[in-house]
Amino acid sequence: MGYEAPTMRRPIASNALLLPMALATVAVPALARPASAAGGPGSVDMLPILAGLVLILIGARLGAALFESIGQPAVLGELLAGIVIGNLGLLGLHALDELRTDVGISILAQIGVLFLLFSVGLESDVKRMMAVGLSSLLVATLGVITPMVLGFFVSSRFFPGHHPMTHWFVGATLTATSVGITARVLADLRRTDSKEGRIILGAAVIDDVMGLIVLAVVAGIIEAADRGAAFAPVTVLWIVGKSLLFLVAAVVAGQWLSRRAFRLASRLGGQGVMLSVALVFCFGLAYLAALSGLAPIVGAFAAGLVLDEVQIRQLGGRNGETRSMQERLQPIATFLVPVFFVLMGIRVDLAAFAQPDVLLFALVLTLAAVIGKQACSLGVLEKGCDRLAVGLGMIPRGEVGLIFAAIGAGLTIAGERVVDNAVFSAVVIMVALTTLVTPPLLVWRLRRLDGRSAMK
Amino acid sequence: MGYEAPTMRRPIASNALLLPMALATVAVPALARPASAAGGPGSVDMLPILAGLVLILIGARLGAALFESIGQPAVLGELLAGIVIGNLGLLGLHALDELRTDVGISILAQIGVLFLLFSVGLESDVKRMMAVGLSSLLVATLGVITPMVLGFFVSSRFFPGHHPMTHWFVGATLTATSVGITARVLADLRRTDSKEGRIILGAAVIDDVMGLIVLAVVAGIIEAADRGAAFAPVTVLWIVGKSLLFLVAAVVAGQWLSRRAFRLASRLGGQGVMLSVALVFCFGLAYLAALSGLAPIVGAFAAGLVLDEVQIRQLGGRNGETRSMQERLQPIATFLVPVFFVLMGIRVDLAAFAQPDVLLFALVLTLAAVIGKQACSLGVLEKGCDRLAVGLGMIPRGEVGLIFAAIGAGLTIAGERVVDNAVFSAVVIMVALTTLVTPPLLVWRLRRLDGRSAMK
Repeated sequence: MGYEAPTMRRPIASNALLLPMALATVAVPALARPASAAGGPGSVDMLPILAGLVLILIGARLGAALFESIGQPAVLGELLAGIVIGNLGLLGLHALDELRTDVGISILAQIGVLFLLFSVGLESDVKRMMAVGLSSLLVATLGVITPMVLGFFVSSRFFPGHHPMTHWFVGATLTATSVGITARVLADLRRTDSKEGRIILGAAVIDDVMGLIVLAVVAGIIEAADRGAAFAPVTVLWIVGKSLLFLVAAVVAGQWLSRRAFRLASRLGGQGVMLSVALVFCFGLAYLAALSGLAPIVGAFAAGLVLDEVQIRQLGGRNGETRSMQERLQPIATFLVPVFFVLMGIRVDLAAFAQPDVLLFALVLTLAAVIGKQACSLGVLEKGCDRLAVGLGMIPRGEVGLIFAAIGAGLTIAGERVVDNAVFSAVVIMVALTTLVTPPLLVWRLRRLDGRSAMK
Repeated sequence: MGYEAPTMRRPIASNALLLPMALATVAVPALARPASAAGGPGSVDMLPILAGLVLILIGARLGAALFESIGQPAVLGELLAGIVIGNLGLLGLHALDELRTDVGISILAQIGVLFLLFSVGLESDVKRMMAVGLSSLLVATLGVITPMVLGFFVSSRFFPGHHPMTHWFVGATLTATSVGITARVLADLRRTDSKEGRIILGAAVIDDVMGLIVLAVVAGIIEAADRGAAFAPVTVLWIVGKSLLFLVAAVVAGQWLSRRAFRLASRLGGQGVMLSVALVFCFGLAYLAALSGLAPIVGAFAAGLVLDEVQIRQLGGRNGETRSMQERLQPIATFLVPVFFVLMGIRVDLAAFAQPDVLLFALVLTLAAVIGKQACSLGVLEKGCDRLAVGLGMIPRGEVGLIFAAIGAGLTIAGERVVDNAVFSAVVIMVALTTLVTPPLLVWRLRRLDGRSAMK
């Protein structure tokens, strides 16, 4: 996405000044600091961060429990809790408005989403991706192209005055199936190992990667256009090449390196040493992805893909540590992942829905998202496989859609924001609705299949 | 410490401006943002944070493994790794200088130290604190007063021109035994349940609280003096009263509330729900402590004290979750606690040691710290208890000393920093040396005792 890393570095004072500043504003309880020391680099007011974390964790749990009690995924409850917290201003309560822009909460949310994608990567591995084969690839391809085209048309009908590239960007937010939500629904239905389940999971993994490439291409074109540069297919090739190069290098070199690193770490010893190595891989590949112009989450996902759970279990077994890396990461995910989803909810501007146009746009966008993924059923090559179930399983959009929208909100073209408040809010609603609609539909379809096979 | 909470709040733009700003700088991968959006509230460059985390985690592990391989505690290795990373500038390598002042790393370090103190609080509980009784109280009191007085004299000899209160502040950094290091050394020696072990642990808990009250008093007096206000004993009483009030209220109301919250949460259900409640208690009490003028870590420690591991295990057992909260927190601690210690090391300015005075000061301060704690042996009332072992066990200073030094670095009196570069570096060396010296001394003493009782 043509991203220039060092553009926002803070200007560095001379080295002689650095330590005094660091000391005056030193991390720790960050209290008892005189006002004069405030605002320097490294200084942080922990009060709003602590208050924000308490609110977010409570809201996430209550929202999750509420939605799970009615058989819906927890992530919807977290988004809703955020929407409530973020829109108390509508009731005249503005004490929490700062949460929307708090740097500390932002950083924790960003690290949280890295852990989510790392965890999704851990769930699948490279071999499993290869084995799902052609069907997954076709399902993924159709499931990326069709919703994107539909999204383009919906956006251009609703906002005829906008730049065409913004319509493509809206289309891009409809591309990626949420692996997390899909996998969780299949697990709840004990269908992870069915033929349909494996195709859906494989395709979801592939369309995640495809979606990220689409994002890189579209965002790259928009940035070039915004700089007044001509649309250069070479740029696109370079962006695609860079991301593929990163992924291939991460998977090949990463696999080689991770095996050696874990073996070395298990000899190094120390409590939690395997977890530390996993964290280094997650943050390290996220860093390299960002350096290659990709989003850090691509790197985190690749890191998860690369780690070999079997090796980790074997090495851990020698020290009596039999849990998988996924299980060991669970507490960190429990802490940080909801921060991302609640913050996404907090940033939804309900005031935008006062305009009936926005609401209508959200509903039509959702329809495009649902219908677009039904093209997936044409990609299933296997016989005796329920095509409708595959199409339904591909519906849920999640974190990736929100991330795309968030990135679009930071892009401009010809002085106009690519994703404005209305579109951002509509995407959040689309994510919520596609997530909400999938479990009941999948339950209905798969139970009908069970009934049929029972009758045979 | 007379801390005014809202002094450093960012000025808030009108509400209409907030959402666009939030969106333009939205959390997530924080990439592909045009330079124009950079620097607004909520905007974060993830690249230095990711690079910093990778370096810190690798450094922490290598340092820890190195020190553990020679029978020393891991925390020393983490500090050393930080010192190396932070002083590469001396070799002409300035690429990492930004780490000292990175806001993201600072926030993660601050949350890390909360988890450390929360975890220390979990290790002890209120009943165990009450049971250790008079000996622990006397040991703690002597172990706070003597090093503080010795520290005052050392500082006033070395820096006769400084304000007397800065000498008391230096004394205060010598007060608190590091519960974490002490407990870990005792566990390594399998002496946690010996008579000496229980007295040391109880006293370490009490002198932690005492040290924090001392800090509140000294810092409060300094802030009053800096504002030109008279030294008012009422202020001191108010500060002491506030901190005691917070601790008593946190322990009494917190215990009542936590039992109900965990029972409620276990009915609420959901993966990791008990962990979320524990996090809410940790951050919530940290927030309330900060509001009461105490350091957030006091609240995190109180939260750990208040949580009832027995209840948590019982409630968890119903859902097949038998691990203690301590074990469930382990991965988060593995991630975040080293960030604090490595960052502390990073902030040590080795250039300050070029002055022989500073080095001499560090050594004499360490001597005062070690000798001061030997007064503790006078507080042991029980017969048949090795007084020397208790005195040696109280030697290690850790995170609390560093935190005091960090807070002192942010305080000024009569235009002069209370803890300047030289003193800060000396305190870090003192922490390292007291931590380094304890394990071999304790091993020597306790093995001699074992030998004696074997001969009987």
